[in-house]
Amino acid sequence: MRVMLTVSYDGTNYCGSQVQENGITIEEVLNRELSRFFDQNIKVSGASRTDSGVHAIGAVFVFDVETKMPAEKISYALNVSLPDDIVVIHSKEVSSDFHPRFQKTSKTYEYFILNSDFPNPLLRNYTYHYRKFLDDKKMNEAAKFLIGEHDFTSFAAIGSQTNTFVREIFDAGVRRDGDLIVFYITGAGFLYNMVRIIVGTLVEVGNGKRKPSEMKEILEKKDRSAAGPTAPAQGLVLREITYKE
Amino acid sequence: MRVMLTVSYDGTNYCGSQVQENGITIEEVLNRELSRFFDQNIKVSGASRTDSGVHAIGAVFVFDVETKMPAEKISYALNVSLPDDIVVIHSKEVSSDFHPRFQKTSKTYEYFILNSDFPNPLLRNYTYHYRKFLDDKKMNEAAKFLIGEHDFTSFAAIGSQTNTFVREIFDAGVRRDGDLIVFYITGAGFLYNMVRIIVGTLVEVGNGKRKPSEMKEILEKKDRSAAGPTAPAQGLVLREITYKE
Repeated sequence: MRVMLTVSYDGTNYCGSQVQENGITIEEVLNRELSRFFDQNIKVSGASRTDSGVHAIGAVFVFDVETKMPAEKISYALNVSLPDDIVVIHSKEVSSDFHPRFQKTSKTYEYFILNSDFPNPLLRNYTYHYRKFLDDKKMNEAAKFLIGEHDFTSFAAIGSQTNTFVREIFDAGVRRDGDLIVFYITGAGFLYNMVRIIVGTLVEVGNGKRKPSEMKEILEKKDRSAAGPTAPAQGLVLREITYKE
Repeated sequence: MRVMLTVSYDGTNYCGSQVQENGITIEEVLNRELSRFFDQNIKVSGASRTDSGVHAIGAVFVFDVETKMPAEKISYALNVSLPDDIVVIHSKEVSSDFHPRFQKTSKTYEYFILNSDFPNPLLRNYTYHYRKFLDDKKMNEAAKFLIGEHDFTSFAAIGSQTNTFVREIFDAGVRRDGDLIVFYITGAGFLYNMVRIIVGTLVEVGNGKRKPSEMKEILEKKDRSAAGPTAPAQGLVLREITYKE
């Protein structure tokens, strides 16, 4: 049967989600523990890539397995042997033709900025610390220009390989909770580094370097150099992936 | 001059705050970096002990130094060389007879419980994960019995060395924010493990094992075995120390 896992992880100590040569990844740990548990060679397939240091609350992975164990119980069984920075929060059976990347989805990312004089050591791996005051209302105003279907070339890492740079954003905004500024964005899909480049640009709106309306102009330029820098990885969390079945 | 530092730290990788033989502590790191920076043998004196794994947002340390540097600038200078899990958020000169432990103070601790089906890997070092539903309203009701001057023998670790087990609590309570339950307590002083034993007992109120009014009876018994277990270290944060000058 095909099983879908919803996985939370702290990306601090991993080289991202996808298997690669540079170091240990989330997929590798899942493959290792699933293969061990079921005594079969199991390879998970992820719904989206996260970079080194990026976190997830609701990442999705799919794998095939021969077992009589109810799919719902796999999460509990797997958590026993997983390291405590990876937790499977849900497991269920999906149809055999379900593929996590080729299905219609809605993904939500959140990015956390700690806007304070001094960093907070308890939040150091989960926020981007920014000292100068950021105007979250202006950042929110700028974020609204992202909603809709746009060509996001300006907000994609140079050299991104993709058929099209057009992506649809369903919702985006910025809210403040004390010293914490949270950027949230929900869309059908994202380009490589897109959320982090958007945040780097929104920070330049928040600190007064750019006007909120510049977001529209940056989109129209279709040029990476028109946007701001790529914000650091540790503030980014893949919050949720929803499948429309 | 005598300098007071307000320090935030992530206690995960330290054997508590006070210098001891078992491993590296917050005081040791402060002593090392201050001695190096001022090229003098400097020893800090802490306002309160925190155990291994316990965190602080506003811990207070005092030290004497010969320098012309304005005390206010020491925080910035020190943060350059401190590891990123220790941050000095404030520094100021205090009178030469100021001692952080013998002054009248008010200390606030917070304890964070994640009350959810599955643990959250991003909060694993900063919360106590508790699966079964906790009734925060009942926990809050129980916490109110702590307010005032009481003999806290029942809530002190066995073998605690102290002249008196009487402590004054100015405020205490429990609030819920989604899956997160926060216990807060402010008092003139605390016994060894007191906050963690209180939390262990409040959890037994929250899960229905005890009634809120039992807190009063436990206090009256003056017997550690009347109270609940000691809650784990990682949920505890020393929030603030206020000096009444």
